[in-house]
Amino acid sequence: MADAPFFMTAGQIAELVGGRVIGDPDRQVWGANGLEEAGEGDLCFVRSPKYYSQLRASRASVALVSEPVDGITPTCVVVSNPEGAFLRVLRHILERTANPAKPMGIHPSAWVQPDAAVEEGVGIGPFACVEAGATVGAGSSLGAGVYVGSGARIGRSCIIYPRVVILDRVIIGDRCVLHPGACIGGDGFGFFPHEGRWEKVPQTGTVIIGDDVEIGCNTAVDRATFGATRIGTGTKIDNLVQIGHNVVIGEHCVIAGMVGISGSVKIGNNVRIGAAAGIAGHITIGDGASIGARSGVAHSVPPGGAVSGFPAVDHALSRRIMVSQSRLPDLVRRVREIERRLGMG
Amino acid sequence: MADAPFFMTAGQIAELVGGRVIGDPDRQVWGANGLEEAGEGDLCFVRSPKYYSQLRASRASVALVSEPVDGITPTCVVVSNPEGAFLRVLRHILERTANPAKPMGIHPSAWVQPDAAVEEGVGIGPFACVEAGATVGAGSSLGAGVYVGSGARIGRSCIIYPRVVILDRVIIGDRCVLHPGACIGGDGFGFFPHEGRWEKVPQTGTVIIGDDVEIGCNTAVDRATFGATRIGTGTKIDNLVQIGHNVVIGEHCVIAGMVGISGSVKIGNNVRIGAAAGIAGHITIGDGASIGARSGVAHSVPPGGAVSGFPAVDHALSRRIMVSQSRLPDLVRRVREIERRLGMG
Amino acid sequence: MADAPFFMTAGQIAELVGGRVIGDPDRQVWGANGLEEAGEGDLCFVRSPKYYSQLRASRASVALVSEPVDGITPTCVVVSNPEGAFLRVLRHILERTANPAKPMGIHPSAWVQPDAAVEEGVGIGPFACVEAGATVGAGSSLGAGVYVGSGARIGRSCIIYPRVVILDRVIIGDRCVLHPGACIGGDGFGFFPHEGRWEKVPQTGTVIIGDDVEIGCNTAVDRATFGATRIGTGTKIDNLVQIGHNVVIGEHCVIAGMVGISGSVKIGNNVRIGAAAGIAGHITIGDGASIGARSGVAHSVPPGGAVSGFPAVDHALSRRIMVSQSRLPDLVRRVREIERRLGMG
Repeated sequence: MADAPFFMTAGQIAELVGGRVIGDPDRQVWGANGLEEAGEGDLCFVRSPKYYSQLRASRASVALVSEPVDGITPTCVVVSNPEGAFLRVLRHILERTANPAKPMGIHPSAWVQPDAAVEEGVGIGPFACVEAGATVGAGSSLGAGVYVGSGARIGRSCIIYPRVVILDRVIIGDRCVLHPGACIGGDGFGFFPHEGRWEKVPQTGTVIIGDDVEIGCNTAVDRATFGATRIGTGTKIDNLVQIGHNVVIGEHCVIAGMVGISGSVKIGNNVRIGAAAGIAGHITIGDGASIGARSGVAHSVPPGGAVSGFPAVDHALSRRIMVSQSRLPDLVRRVREIERRLGMG
Repeated sequence: MADAPFFMTAGQIAELVGGRVIGDPDRQVWGANGLEEAGEGDLCFVRSPKYYSQLRASRASVALVSEPVDGITPTCVVVSNPEGAFLRVLRHILERTANPAKPMGIHPSAWVQPDAAVEEGVGIGPFACVEAGATVGAGSSLGAGVYVGSGARIGRSCIIYPRVVILDRVIIGDRCVLHPGACIGGDGFGFFPHEGRWEKVPQTGTVIIGDDVEIGCNTAVDRATFGATRIGTGTKIDNLVQIGHNVVIGEHCVIAGMVGISGSVKIGNNVRIGAAAGIAGHITIGDGASIGARSGVAHSVPPGGAVSGFPAVDHALSRRIMVSQSRLPDLVRRVREIERRLGMG
Repeated sequence: MADAPFFMTAGQIAELVGGRVIGDPDRQVWGANGLEEAGEGDLCFVRSPKYYSQLRASRASVALVSEPVDGITPTCVVVSNPEGAFLRVLRHILERTANPAKPMGIHPSAWVQPDAAVEEGVGIGPFACVEAGATVGAGSSLGAGVYVGSGARIGRSCIIYPRVVILDRVIIGDRCVLHPGACIGGDGFGFFPHEGRWEKVPQTGTVIIGDDVEIGCNTAVDRATFGATRIGTGTKIDNLVQIGHNVVIGEHCVIAGMVGISGSVKIGNNVRIGAAAGIAGHITIGDGASIGARSGVAHSVPPGGAVSGFPAVDHALSRRIMVSQSRLPDLVRRVREIERRLGMG
C-alpha cells in the first residue's frame, strides 16, 4: 500500500498504548527490535528496571518502559506493561499494511500429483508443483512456483514463499516460514578421489526441520549423506546462509545472514551466530554459545562460550587482539628501535 | 551464438575505430573495463593525459588513448576520442552477439491478474505471475517464471530475468536490470525474545528502488520493518549480496559480489564496496567513501573515507597492518630474545 | 522414505562387505567421506598402509582398511579391497533410499520451443522452459521450472534440478549436476564511469562448462564480457559460490561453499579452494594449489602452492601468524615494559 505508515512518532505511540512521553514526542521510529539489537530509528521495550543499564547503552530512538529513566538516548514512553505495548504497536502497524498475497485454494495452473496429500485450507499458487507422495498440512500456503519433492512433508500453517525448492523426502514442521529462493535438501558436498577424478558420495539422507523455524531468501540447507540434517524448533535463519550435510542445529538459535556451517557440525540450543561467520566441519557449538559476526570458528565452543575473530578465540581476547592490531605497525618500529639501542640484530 | 567473437586484436580495434596501433597489433583482448578495474585481457580507455600515471600502473592489454604513451604494459590504440571509440567497440561486439531472448507480448501460459496494470510493449514470459494491483511499465520485460507480488510497481524499460521474485508492494524505477534469482522484498530479520522463544517483529514495510539500478543473481534485498529499504538511482549491485531491512543506499554506488549490509545502515552517494565486505547494523557510510574487499566495517565512515581490514580502519593503516602481520611470528621471537638479553620474564 | 537408514554400524558394514571388525562393532556411521575430510560419524577407506599416518590423525568413526591398524580413533573393518568395499556400502545405501523424482518424458505443462532440439530419453518437468535453438542431450533431465535460454546447449545424462536458470548460449557438457537455484550465464559485473554515472559494459560472452561438473544450490556463474567463462571437466562446486566473468577454472578442482572468484581469474587443474575464500581479480592459481578456508587471495599462487589467511600467504607462515595473533595483546604490554626498563618512549 502506498499509504502504509512510513514512521510513527513517540507521541503517536504513547497515544496508541495509553502511555506518557518523557522527552521529544516528535521523535520518529521506522523500525522495531529487541533491546539488544535496536538502533537509531528503532522502537524497543524494556521489561524491567534491571535492564536499564542495557537501555543506557542503547541507541534506539524510542523505548517503552515501565518507569522513567534519566540520561538516556531513547525517548521514553512510560506504560504499565512495556512488552504488551510493544506487541500492540506491532499489531497496529501490521493491520495498517496490506498482507502479502497468500494463495487461496489450489490455483488451476498448479501441478499437484494425484497421490499427494493436501489437507484442508491449503493455498497453492500458480505453477507450484507438489510431487507424488508429498504432504501439505492444513492451513499452509505454497507461493507461486514452489516445488515440493516426492515424499516431502510440510506441516500445518506454514508460509512457503514463491520459488522455494523443497526436495524429496524433506520434512518441515508446523508454522515454518520459508522465504523466496530457499533450497532445502540439495545434495551435500561429498566427493572422494578415485583414479585422478572426484567420485561422488551419494547423498541419500534428508533434512528434518522442526516447528516455528524461519529460513531466509536463497538460503541452502543440504541433505545428509545418510540420516538427516536437522534444524530444531524455533530456530531463525537469515538470508544466503549455507548449512552443510549432516549438520544438527538445536532449538531457538538465531543465525544471521551469510553464515556458513560446514558438514557434520553440531549446534546446541539458544546459540547465536553473527553475520558472515563460518564454522568448520565436525565441531560442536554448545548450548547458549555466541559466535561473533565474521568469525571463523575452527574448534568446538563450550556451552555458554562467546568467541569471535579468525581464528575464533574467546570474545574478550578477540577484542583485545583487534585493538592491538592497529598498533602492530608501530610495534614493529618500536622493537627495531629497542634492538638498535641494545646493539642487537 | 557459437560464432560470437572470442577476442579482438589491437589491430582489429584500430581498424574499427580509425586509430593507430603503438605496440603489438596482434595483442588480444577478451574483455573490457574501466581503467581502474581493467587487467590482463581487457580493453580500457583513457580520457586525457592526466590519467596516464594510472595507465602506467595498469595491466590492461589494450588501451584507447588520445596521445601515444611510452613505457606501459598496454598496447595503445591512438584515436581522437578514446571514450567514443571504447563505446563503439562495445557496440560492435554487442551487434555481433545474439541478444538474450526478451519475451514479446504476454505468453499464453503467464498468469496476470485481471486488475494488474500492464502498459504497452511489455513482454511477459512463460509461467510468470503478476498479482493483483501490480503495475508493469511500458517496454519492460519479465522473464520466464518471474513473480511480481500484489501492489508491486515496476517502471519502464526494465529487464527482469527469469525466476526473479519481487514481493508485494515493492517499487522499482525505470530501466532497472534484475538478474535471475534476485529476491526483492523478503522479510527483514527481526525477532525479540519472549518467554524463551523468538517472537517475530512483523516486517510491514517495503523496498523502493530508483532508476537504472542493476541487481545481480541471487541477491536478496529485505523489506523494511516499517517504511522502506531504499536503493538509489544508478546504483549497481553484484551477485549474492545481502541487503538488510531499512538499509538506505544512495545514488551511483557500486557494490561487489557477496557483500553483506546489515539492517538500518545508511550509505551515501558514489560509495564503492569491495567484494565480500560486511557492514554492521545502524552505521553510516558517507558520500564517496570506499570500502575494501573483505572488510568488516563496525563504525561509521566519513564522506570520502577509505577503509579496509577487519575491523576496518583507514586504508593506509590497514595496508601497514597487513604488511606487519607477516612479521608477527618473527616479532614474538625477537621480543623474547630482548627479554632474555635484559634478564626479564 | 521415512524408513531410510539413519546410520549403519561397523558390524553391519563388515557383514555387507565380508570384512572383519577390529574395535567396537556397534560404532555408528551416518556419513561417508574421503580420508582427509572424514570426521566423527563418517565412514572412510584407506587404500594402502602408506596412508596409515593420515589415518592415525583421522577422527572418522569407521575406516575400511586392508590391514589392521593399532592405536587409532576409527573402528577398523579389514577387507581385501577397501575402496571397492566403500563403493559397495555407498551403493547399498543408495539402493535403500528413494531416488529423487526425475522427470520422465516431457511434462504437458512444459514450454519447449518448436525448434529446440530435445534428444531421446530426456525428461522435462512441469513449467520448465526451453527456448528457441536450445539443445538438450539424450538422457538429461530438467526439473520443474528449469529455464534453458535460447541457443543454450546441455549435454547428455545431466541432472538439472528444479528452478535452475541457464541463460542463452551457455554450453554445458555431459553428466553435469546442477542444484536448485543455480544461475549460469548472468551478466558479468562491468561498468565504467561516464558523466557522473556508471555505464554498463555489455556482457556479450557466454559460459562453457565441461563434463562431470557439479554446481551447488544458488551458485552464480557469470558470462564473460566477450568470449567465455570456463569450468573444466570434473570440477565440483558447492553452494552459494560466485564465479565472476571471464574466470577460467581447470579440471578436477574442488570449490567449497561461499567461495567468491573475481573476474578474469585463471585457476589450474586439481586446485582445492576452502569454504568462504575469496580470490581477487585477474590473478592465476597454479595447478594443484590449495587455498585455505576464509582466505583472501590477492596475488597469484604458483603450482602446488598452499596459501591461507587474509592477505593469504604461504600456509605454514599463515599458521604461525594465527598462533602469534593471540599473543599480540601480551606482546604490546611486554614491549612497553621493555621500553620502561630502558627508559625509552
